[in-house]
Amino acid sequence: MNYCPGLGYSQGVTTAGTARDTTTRTGPGAARQHTLRERNLELVARAVFEVPEPLSRAGVAAATGLARATVSTLVDQLVAARLVRELPAVTGGRAGRPAVPLVPAPRSVVGLGLEVNVDYLGVRVLDLTGDVVSERVVPGALHDSDPAVVLGRLGELAREVTDGVAASGMTVAGARLALPGLVDPRTGLLEVAPNLGWSSLDPVPLLGLGDLAVRIANEAKLAALAELAGGSDVAAPDSFIFVSGDVGIGGAVVVDRALFLGERGWNGEIGHVVVDPAGPRCSCGAFGCLEQYAGKEAMMRAAGLPPDSPLAALVARLAQTGAAAGGAQALPAGRALGSALADFVNLLDVGTIVLGGAYAELLPWLRADVEAVLADRVLAAPFVDLHVRAAQAGPHAALTGGAREVLRAVLAAPAAWV
Amino acid sequence: MNYCPGLGYSQGVTTAGTARDTTTRTGPGAARQHTLRERNLELVARAVFEVPEPLSRAGVAAATGLARATVSTLVDQLVAARLVRELPAVTGGRAGRPAVPLVPAPRSVVGLGLEVNVDYLGVRVLDLTGDVVSERVVPGALHDSDPAVVLGRLGELAREVTDGVAASGMTVAGARLALPGLVDPRTGLLEVAPNLGWSSLDPVPLLGLGDLAVRIANEAKLAALAELAGGSDVAAPDSFIFVSGDVGIGGAVVVDRALFLGERGWNGEIGHVVVDPAGPRCSCGAFGCLEQYAGKEAMMRAAGLPPDSPLAALVARLAQTGAAAGGAQALPAGRALGSALADFVNLLDVGTIVLGGAYAELLPWLRADVEAVLADRVLAAPFVDLHVRAAQAGPHAALTGGAREVLRAVLAAPAAWV
Repeated sequence: MNYCPGLGYSQGVTTAGTARDTTTRTGPGAARQHTLRERNLELVARAVFEVPEPLSRAGVAAATGLARATVSTLVDQLVAARLVRELPAVTGGRAGRPAVPLVPAPRSVVGLGLEVNVDYLGVRVLDLTGDVVSERVVPGALHDSDPAVVLGRLGELAREVTDGVAASGMTVAGARLALPGLVDPRTGLLEVAPNLGWSSLDPVPLLGLGDLAVRIANEAKLAALAELAGGSDVAAPDSFIFVSGDVGIGGAVVVDRALFLGERGWNGEIGHVVVDPAGPRCSCGAFGCLEQYAGKEAMMRAAGLPPDSPLAALVARLAQTGAAAGGAQALPAGRALGSALADFVNLLDVGTIVLGGAYAELLPWLRADVEAVLADRVLAAPFVDLHVRAAQAGPHAALTGGAREVLRAVLAAPAAWV
Repeated sequence: MNYCPGLGYSQGVTTAGTARDTTTRTGPGAARQHTLRERNLELVARAVFEVPEPLSRAGVAAATGLARATVSTLVDQLVAARLVRELPAVTGGRAGRPAVPLVPAPRSVVGLGLEVNVDYLGVRVLDLTGDVVSERVVPGALHDSDPAVVLGRLGELAREVTDGVAASGMTVAGARLALPGLVDPRTGLLEVAPNLGWSSLDPVPLLGLGDLAVRIANEAKLAALAELAGGSDVAAPDSFIFVSGDVGIGGAVVVDRALFLGERGWNGEIGHVVVDPAGPRCSCGAFGCLEQYAGKEAMMRAAGLPPDSPLAALVARLAQTGAAAGGAQALPAGRALGSALADFVNLLDVGTIVLGGAYAELLPWLRADVEAVLADRVLAAPFVDLHVRAAQAGPHAALTGGAREVLRAVLAAPAAWV
């Protein structure tokens, strides 16, 4: 698990808000200046969490340049705070003294990812090792829904999950709520989520989660951060366009391992890129947006299925009709998606495209069309290798990205936990 | 004139190439390590060039934190190198000793901007004060032209101009060649310029400019840098989308006063964004690209003029036909440009759009349509102020941007001139 304190979404977008991400401990300490001890604590935490092999105290001293005695004290504090765990001592090397490997503490301090999407509600808890400790995903049909009802229901799910987690002795450090729309992390407002029919909304109080610190973010941005963290076997590319295809289609841009956010983080709205000006009207009010061709419901309708069918039904239908995985025009969405992606690449010059959400599973039936249109339309196509790949972060990746962001904030300021 | 050494295009794109930008002085000095004296010289040069009011030696010492004796020696060197000029001493303030104001030296070391575009060749020389010392712009019809002939001709123009400049005692520090296509500054190759019909080309040797250091760049990126430098009265916005409309349509993105370049600087290709998949075939091979609606030749044709007509003819025709400046549908290009710009804003989240090239002059007839389509199609339009404005940097801004880049490189390493 690789935390990158210099790169978080919250750093890029949030200009207001508290430096700490928990309400479980407050007090005069929060207002103190960033002391040398706090900085050293961060250095030690980073060494333990970022170096792939478990380090001993001596290894941390070597990695950070801090004195061994200082490291030892700080490690003791991180262990006491349950951020770091000591493994059984191992003897080895030339020196006689056994080394105690230090690793991220499992099932101690955890982060909570929450998500409202058009066809599901989700809750996921990750611990500091990156393991999913608990999760709930509940299908729903949330078009033009009542935010109070939906967020109240999500809050209940979250409480059920966090009650279980707390009963096992874990501490929830905070939460991120992923939403399929334009969010303003400075004010905490959701400006608009066209497919939910929500606008100008302060969603956090409606969760009813008391004084748990919850911050909101765009779902595609969080999913892209989950993707950036990489899978267990596959490293993420340093730069990629991430497109998350559900009922709505979200997007994010990663350049040199950092989210590119434009002015407010309201970029990546590929779902509303023009595919055909003579096309159908979109939930946003404009005509011929990508979502009307390659959103999940549009894909269901084009396959003759009810729009709220599960993804498995579409995959089964594709198999039934003998649509060849790898062949062209298996799904009408393919060429539309290729067209909007070509615009994205022409405007951004990022040549690796990671397809998440429903697209990750549908990629075999989309790839031929997407690649053909990219080859036709991207001006630089003859001179660069364009890569189209399925997301590695698994289903509902925004939940993972959100929980990881909470834990990243913990590790960026571990002193609050000591 | 505000040089921003931390921001230049060349820094963002060029990963190879020499640190110095001149062939007039070479030798073992070029390979030396960056010494303290060199760094101090840069500090002093930056103070003189970046602080709006002329500083004295004492003022430079205060601005840089360097000792007055050190500053005095370094200023003497910059004066001897003809980068800095001393104005007549002025008495004032409390102290008795008269202060000598230091300013960028006029008409001494100069930068050369060169450009091949589809309908003109251009040469422009700027001095360190930002003044245009000399320029030549020659109309041409360079579709599917012979690069050797065209670049040879541009080289002749450049020599005529630089001979005159040299005869007046000025020194040309280097040149930037702006091209309307995908360039790779690492290799010096032009990959493709669809409207010129050029591809896979090493353009610099064809200029025949001997050992003058010439580097290539995309014309829209250089024009955006000229725009970023700001006009005499209007400051540039910190973040903007720049779109340069000529026969081809180029684009660039500035975020927080730095060019955003994607992976290779091949971004901003708005000319090839899909306006209508059923539209006409483009020079790039795809169908319905913006250039086929809003490129200069397409606009001429739509107005019933020969495609290679000068811009003044289109403006005259608009006046003749009584097309209302400020009214809708004065030019069919307006809605097409609005559509592609809406995609750009949806994908980038940069809310200020600066229109350059022919669009700067045509904006009165484009604005109503562009703004209407942006309001319809940009998801964030209800929540942000979208601004559309004409470029301030004047005609053929890439020439200015190129010449400025040369001078920026000089000031980033003034030791080479001392």
